[in-house]
Amino acid sequence: MPKIVDHNERKIKIAEATWNVIVREGLENASVRKIASEANLSVGSLRHYFPSQSDLFLFSMELVSERVRKRIENKNDDKPPLELFQEASLEVLPIDEDRKIEMEVWLVFSAKTLVDRRLEELSKNVFSQMRTGIEKIINSLDSLQLLKEDVDLHVEAIRLHALIDGLATHHILHPNTLTNEEMILTLRYHLQSLCKEV
Amino acid sequence: MPKIVDHNERKIKIAEATWNVIVREGLENASVRKIASEANLSVGSLRHYFPSQSDLFLFSMELVSERVRKRIENKNDDKPPLELFQEASLEVLPIDEDRKIEMEVWLVFSAKTLVDRRLEELSKNVFSQMRTGIEKIINSLDSLQLLKEDVDLHVEAIRLHALIDGLATHHILHPNTLTNEEMILTLRYHLQSLCKEV
Repeated sequence: MPKIVDHNERKIKIAEATWNVIVREGLENASVRKIASEANLSVGSLRHYFPSQSDLFLFSMELVSERVRKRIENKNDDKPPLELFQEASLEVLPIDEDRKIEMEVWLVFSAKTLVDRRLEELSKNVFSQMRTGIEKIINSLDSLQLLKEDVDLHVEAIRLHALIDGLATHHILHPNTLTNEEMILTLRYHLQSLCKEV
Repeated sequence: MPKIVDHNERKIKIAEATWNVIVREGLENASVRKIASEANLSVGSLRHYFPSQSDLFLFSMELVSERVRKRIENKNDDKPPLELFQEASLEVLPIDEDRKIEMEVWLVFSAKTLVDRRLEELSKNVFSQMRTGIEKIINSLDSLQLLKEDVDLHVEAIRLHALIDGLATHHILHPNTLTNEEMILTLRYHLQSLCKEV
């Protein structure tokens, strides 16, 4: 009996091959031919799953956000809110090799959103979801009266969001100047600075 | 008498044409032919100034950092340190159209540093210079006893650096979600949060 290959599973394998080619050779060299070869497929088979390079890139960028979302959702939310907050924030940082590749791919696609409407739309949605998530956590910490009195909830959400992405980008671009430890330490320091002393 | 064209001035014009093509069509479409046409030059003339595309990209990325550096150096340093600090930080943010293009170009080249050694080297140097500049200002505010007692100078430099780049990137990618006003407001809020209340 022939092996039945799950359609979505195959798409994910192709997207991961796309990530590898992009991280290794750059987006401008990520041709469909090269990606097919990386995924051990013919160009024809790849086209069956992704009729155009644009479809392939969109799915590949989307997969990054899916992975991050799943990791955050899988967090055990029985923990105290501040701990949960710290852990959720850390999920977005490139703290290990898998997350590093995801963040590199995200950076490359983000640069491309400047000239690609479909990627721009996706990026906009993910940005808004991320912002909403950060706002929710900041608001819930506030309801629990854990935050300092003088914080501005709206600005704090903007600040934390920018800080997380800034740290993540600095670490993947300059891992020796901003180490993994410094990245995590700085985020914890920031979160502590928002909260009342216990 | 033939017009004498300053060699460096011509190189700057070509680099600016490169920026335009990159911002309009993406790095993967920024061919030497297209850039020559944007600069109203023949491919041969362009090659006279930049023998390879790699040389052209390196100079074009370098020009962004030069422009930012010059703007910061031109700041009138007779002002009070906190004001000077705020103004210098704002120089790095994409607060107008010229600075937006520079930041977009910087983002595109930054993504490319992952697979281009020469751009990576330049990016590393600029990153270190920027970090050193931020450390100097934070240290001088500390010497003047303007900072709160409990701040960690090393972590504050990392945090401010990441915040500035995070805000700048969010604004150029999502100008409607993170507006120019919010970007500036958040940076001022952050700087105030480091300082003692007056």
